[in-house]
Amino acid sequence: MSRTEQHEGTYHHGDLRKAILDSARELLEEGGPPALSLREIARRVGVSAPAAYHHFRNLEAIAQAVAEQGFGDLAAKLDGARSGDGMHAMGMAYIGFAQANSGLYRLMFSDGLAAKSDAGSALQAMRAQAFATLRKALEPQVPPDQTQALALYLWSVTHGLALLAIDGQLGGAERAQEQIAQVLEVTGRALSPLATT
Amino acid sequence: MSRTEQHEGTYHHGDLRKAILDSARELLEEGGPPALSLREIARRVGVSAPAAYHHFRNLEAIAQAVAEQGFGDLAAKLDGARSGDGMHAMGMAYIGFAQANSGLYRLMFSDGLAAKSDAGSALQAMRAQAFATLRKALEPQVPPDQTQALALYLWSVTHGLALLAIDGQLGGAERAQEQIAQVLEVTGRALSPLATT
Repeated sequence: MSRTEQHEGTYHHGDLRKAILDSARELLEEGGPPALSLREIARRVGVSAPAAYHHFRNLEAIAQAVAEQGFGDLAAKLDGARSGDGMHAMGMAYIGFAQANSGLYRLMFSDGLAAKSDAGSALQAMRAQAFATLRKALEPQVPPDQTQALALYLWSVTHGLALLAIDGQLGGAERAQEQIAQVLEVTGRALSPLATT
Repeated sequence: MSRTEQHEGTYHHGDLRKAILDSARELLEEGGPPALSLREIARRVGVSAPAAYHHFRNLEAIAQAVAEQGFGDLAAKLDGARSGDGMHAMGMAYIGFAQANSGLYRLMFSDGLAAKSDAGSALQAMRAQAFATLRKALEPQVPPDQTQALALYLWSVTHGLALLAIDGQLGGAERAQEQIAQVLEVTGRALSPLATT
C-alpha cells in the first residue's frame, strides 16, 4: 500500500471533499485562479489524483464548487450588513469580502477558468443570481424604471473598486479603507435624489 | 538553412519587433493574458525563440511593451472624446476601448503577468500615470478636496463596467451599449451637484 493510499484511508466520508475544497481555496489565495491545479490539490490533501476524481470529475468542477461556497459566503456577509447603514454598509461588506478572499473573488466575478465550459456557465448563473439579489434589495428604494440601471451602476462601482483594492491600486491598508469609504459615499450621491423613501 | 532562419532574414530592421508585438496582441485578444506565450509568438512570426529574445529579454518584456502601446492607444481615444459630451463621452470611449481590446485591457488594468516582476512594476506605473491624467482632467471641474475621491470613483465605475462588459455580463452588443450609457448617466449624477462650473 502506497503512502497516498494510506492517507486516503484516513479521510471519513465527506471529509475528503471538504479537504479538496479547502486546498483549492488556499491555492486561490496564494496565486489566483491560474494557481488552481488538480495535481497540487491532491498533493496537499495527500491523496492520489484518481481519489480526488472520485469527488470531482475535473478541476473545473472543483472551481465551480469553490465558487458556490464563495457566493454563499458573500450573500451571508451582505445579509449581515443589511441591518447597518444600508447601501454603504453593504458596499463596504462586498469590498471587504473581495479583499479577504481576493483569489476567490477573481474566480467568482472575473475571468476564471474557461468561460465556455459547464463550470463557466454555472458561474455565469451564480453571478446572475447575485445580481438579481442586489436588484431586489434596491426595488423598494428606487423608481421601478430605474432599478436595472441603478443596480448595474452599484455593481459596476463595487466590482471596479474591489478589483482596484485587491490589485493594490488604492495604496496601503489604511489608505485603501479610507478611499473605499470615500468612493462609496460619492456613489451614494447618485442614488439620493431618486430615493422614494 | 532552416525554414525559420530563412524567415528571419525576411524581416527588415524594426519590423521583427513590430511583428512580435502584433502577434502578442493577437494572442491577447484570442485568450487573454494567459494565452501569451513566447513559443507561440515566435511560431506565428516565423522566427526562432532566440531571434525573438534579440528584441525582448523575455515574455514579460513583450507584455510590458504591448501594455505601453495600449496605454498610448487609450490616451489617444480619450483625448479624441474630450471634445464631446465631457465625462460621458470619455466614459463611453474608455469602455469602448476595453470592449475592442479586451485581452489587452485585462493585461493593462487587471491581473496580468506576475505583479512582482519588473514588467509588473512598469505596469503599475503606467496605471498610476493614466489615473493622474484622469485626476488632472477633473481638477477644473470639482472642488480641490474632492478631486481624489471623484477621480477614484470614476475609475472604479468605468473599470467595473468595462470588465462586466468584456466578461459578457451586460447582455448582447446592443443591450450592453444601452446599459453602459445608462450607468454612465447615473454615474454623472454624483458629480453634478459638485461641479464648480
